[in-house]
Amino acid sequence: MNAEPHPPAAGTGLAPKKRISAPRKSQEIFDATLDLLRDKGYEGLTVEGVAERAGVNKTTLYRWWPSKGALLGAALVNGTQLGFPLPDTGSLQGDLEAVLGSVVSLLTAPAASGIAIAALGAITQSPELAAHARSFFADRLAKEQPILDRAIARGELSPATDPALLMHLMDMLAGAAWLRVAFRQLPLDKEFVARTVRTALHGALVRP
Amino acid sequence: MNAEPHPPAAGTGLAPKKRISAPRKSQEIFDATLDLLRDKGYEGLTVEGVAERAGVNKTTLYRWWPSKGALLGAALVNGTQLGFPLPDTGSLQGDLEAVLGSVVSLLTAPAASGIAIAALGAITQSPELAAHARSFFADRLAKEQPILDRAIARGELSPATDPALLMHLMDMLAGAAWLRVAFRQLPLDKEFVARTVRTALHGALVRP
Repeated sequence: MNAEPHPPAAGTGLAPKKRISAPRKSQEIFDATLDLLRDKGYEGLTVEGVAERAGVNKTTLYRWWPSKGALLGAALVNGTQLGFPLPDTGSLQGDLEAVLGSVVSLLTAPAASGIAIAALGAITQSPELAAHARSFFADRLAKEQPILDRAIARGELSPATDPALLMHLMDMLAGAAWLRVAFRQLPLDKEFVARTVRTALHGALVRP
Repeated sequence: MNAEPHPPAAGTGLAPKKRISAPRKSQEIFDATLDLLRDKGYEGLTVEGVAERAGVNKTTLYRWWPSKGALLGAALVNGTQLGFPLPDTGSLQGDLEAVLGSVVSLLTAPAASGIAIAALGAITQSPELAAHARSFFADRLAKEQPILDRAIARGELSPATDPALLMHLMDMLAGAAWLRVAFRQLPLDKEFVARTVRTALHGALVRP
């Protein structure tokens, strides 16, 4: 696949350009993709619709992303609607509560929940999108890694901690939130967040 | 029972009939519904298609289930493809490992995984199906309640245990399995099952 555009022509008298890794208006394109997914579902999402919404030519989109699955994969990682800040609360429990709280917001806040639920549901229907979604989860996990590093630096976790611990914890925390809101359709409140993190760190058998 | 709409006629010489709560061939109908969902997705699932596959008249189906969402809701609870036996291993850890192992099988075994992934993905796309899916999860949880009751009887859990503990544990266990296989597309092996149950009961901070 040759996704790279043509390099800028030499000798144009312009300052050397950075290597181009996204088209102009890429943020508008990603955000429009996620908005359209929320409004129309994966079935109703089209590259043409994104082009119209973002005010760009559809051939521009096809040059960068050969299909709507590829476009949505990039939008999941880069769209502003699904981003969240990395917490630094001073404790592992606090950081995990903040991250789970962000996941809860994504799954319940009006602006984001339609996108998150539609995107994650669509993953199960499109093998192509699923492949791109893996990048989203890997990217998210890499951004969260400092949470574990800082817990080790503070002595909350052993330096010999399995590097896969963060994924293990996030699977249980985010998985519980997802299952509860998408499948059981039960509310996600502060008590859910605190209890789930407490169980993940200390176990359900601990006496409160 | 007073709720009987038409009590069996006296003196017919036949044994009294049970109250009819499902049409003839209902098991074939439920199984055909889940097979069709796996093969065609929720979009491609039709009451007509189920009727043809199960060898029944479509008017029979519409009489019992007014829409494909209602039919799929009933099939999720009653279809043989998604059923699993209640474990009784003699310990809470063992029972939870067995239940999570069954969830893992549903999400990964060739016969069931296409159905489970398609059904759970479809829930996010259809509010009507979502309402029926709640019954599936409530039904599943009620069937699993003896796991908690037996743990209390064995003294593994306090008699004062929060009755919602089972849902809390299953959210984390099944949620982790679901997120890992559907979204991260990583394998679910015996190590995943043992580690996830161990963390849910004893916490990630415990030194192994």
